[in-house]
Amino acid sequence: MTDRVFNFAAGPSTLPLPVLQQVREELLNYQGLGASIIEMSHRAPHFEKLVAETEALFHELMDIPDTYKVLFAHGGAIMQMSAIPMNLIMRSPTKKAIYIDSGFFARRAIKEGQKYCNMVIAGSSQETNYDYVPESPHDPADDDAAFKYFTTNNTIMGTRFIDFPESGPVPLVGDATSEILSRPLDITRFGVLYAGAQKNLGPSGQAVVIIKKDLLGKAMPETPLLLNYDQLAQDNSLTNTSNVFAIYVINLVLNWLKVQGGVKEMEIQNERKAKVLYDVLDNSSFYHAYAVKKDRATMNATFGLPTEELDNQFIAEALENGLANLKGHKVRGGIRASIYNAMPEEGVNALAQFMEEFERKQG
Amino acid sequence: MTDRVFNFAAGPSTLPLPVLQQVREELLNYQGLGASIIEMSHRAPHFEKLVAETEALFHELMDIPDTYKVLFAHGGAIMQMSAIPMNLIMRSPTKKAIYIDSGFFARRAIKEGQKYCNMVIAGSSQETNYDYVPESPHDPADDDAAFKYFTTNNTIMGTRFIDFPESGPVPLVGDATSEILSRPLDITRFGVLYAGAQKNLGPSGQAVVIIKKDLLGKAMPETPLLLNYDQLAQDNSLTNTSNVFAIYVINLVLNWLKVQGGVKEMEIQNERKAKVLYDVLDNSSFYHAYAVKKDRATMNATFGLPTEELDNQFIAEALENGLANLKGHKVRGGIRASIYNAMPEEGVNALAQFMEEFERKQG
Repeated sequence: MTDRVFNFAAGPSTLPLPVLQQVREELLNYQGLGASIIEMSHRAPHFEKLVAETEALFHELMDIPDTYKVLFAHGGAIMQMSAIPMNLIMRSPTKKAIYIDSGFFARRAIKEGQKYCNMVIAGSSQETNYDYVPESPHDPADDDAAFKYFTTNNTIMGTRFIDFPESGPVPLVGDATSEILSRPLDITRFGVLYAGAQKNLGPSGQAVVIIKKDLLGKAMPETPLLLNYDQLAQDNSLTNTSNVFAIYVINLVLNWLKVQGGVKEMEIQNERKAKVLYDVLDNSSFYHAYAVKKDRATMNATFGLPTEELDNQFIAEALENGLANLKGHKVRGGIRASIYNAMPEEGVNALAQFMEEFERKQG
Repeated sequence: MTDRVFNFAAGPSTLPLPVLQQVREELLNYQGLGASIIEMSHRAPHFEKLVAETEALFHELMDIPDTYKVLFAHGGAIMQMSAIPMNLIMRSPTKKAIYIDSGFFARRAIKEGQKYCNMVIAGSSQETNYDYVPESPHDPADDDAAFKYFTTNNTIMGTRFIDFPESGPVPLVGDATSEILSRPLDITRFGVLYAGAQKNLGPSGQAVVIIKKDLLGKAMPETPLLLNYDQLAQDNSLTNTSNVFAIYVINLVLNWLKVQGGVKEMEIQNERKAKVLYDVLDNSSFYHAYAVKKDRATMNATFGLPTEELDNQFIAEALENGLANLKGHKVRGGIRASIYNAMPEEGVNALAQFMEEFERKQG
């Protein structure tokens, strides 16, 4: 498809071309059943098999032990910002929860969590507009907290936790929406790791929740049925009509990823792709990176040009060159290049070359 | 596509072929933007336009006045069974709500509603396994209720409310999942009318909620952000990353429906389609219809054969004849033919012919 752009959107974001081609190929007739996958019951054998296979692929690709359950939940990551406290907060007699304030989506989680928790903010980088991830050592005074929450990768700011925060005896909860499957993550460090699907996994409207089984079964009585992880676990995520299309595409993406060599190979490619862009930034006095070097993300590179006018000119000329959706999020401005698993190295190389040419023309 | 079956699945269910063909056509490159609709931001102009257009199409096709807001909500109908009481129950000082027990999904709504409401069950047809819809006159003693809830069409049992129950001054809430857009519904009778998408609207994982604006703004404090209708209304349903694919397909389905002649024309076709099947049932002593005649649904025809063995033989032979997914829901058994808007008359005629031939062979 020569008419496809290199798409640097932050999410929903670029998907592997072979995956899209397969979706197209079987859209009117799935596996010879004479109907589309989106026209058939979520209780049919082919779909129950698909869900089970997708769950098994997560276990395999992320090395998840059987002490954890993989759930498919409606509504993306933001829905889980309600579900996490509703499912876990009763574990603390004082309804205490610890949150790390490392960026825009961390703030959204904090705002939502305040409905349900007595909240301790343990570390914030807000005063420098989140250009680094804060330290957050465990305080034994918080041993009675229900959970400790953080965002593993901050999409909008372009930072990530390379190492995960300590939490003592308190279960760690991670929002890995923008980096799941991009590098090996030691799931045994977490009580819950979750991700919205629309960046590294598939279409929007869906989340994957990986939860340690011994955390199930203690939800607030007011928890809506479909936000209750114990209910979803009992029903193997089929408590109601699933988002069939999203789970189907996620399955194709995981199978694609396995063929690519799995998560370790992805990490090698992702580090190499990020280095190409960061090398341009580090060797330039024209561009300035937004995130501090030690914490910058592999998945989202954020930077600015000398003026907002030049930012806009850069975005427009990039698009003319087939490099699309480079505008930064409105709360940060500037440029953001999201380079998830599905972004080919060719796309990153084309962007780096364009950046160098654009700088040269301005210089 | 000669290899497609006539698909009588109850939901997810058959979609109009031209809609699926358009999805396939533009799957790799939406409107010349060089990427798939599922790879691009929900904040991009093309998608905000799509959401606004889809909202306007609902207003146009269902004759919805501006005193109502159309919302797109994650999670299908079951999620709204939590959201309805969470958004409305605070209107009643005693947290009273009235529910009509007319079928399987009504029971699910009742079970979920009991978490949040002091519940009055005003009418039930449970003792005859829901083969009719119960009367439910308004009792002035319930004037203080927050809302009165019913299922307009009972998918599993094959019954529907032809006329809607009285509710006095109490806002009426209707789950129209399996009949939205199949006939004109007077929205001004309702405080809230909602539907999961996967029957008459599009893919699963999504709901449409049509709410009278003066009911907004009174949600329980524990309501999750994405279940809060007032929040969704303020954000024109873009509170978080939408289920882009579902809204996109719903838009195509509504445009298709408009070309077909709109909801009034659908009603004519649907009555004609249902009559073809019910005529076979009424003229047969071999088949027996499950629902009483006065309440039977246009969208779902349910019936049984003399033995369970014959039911199974019927389902298997029908499939060999390209008539798929006729097995009834496990709580009802027997046969269910779901004949939503997208089921062509040709498919219904083929099923009727098969039924007559099957009976003849047995007789």
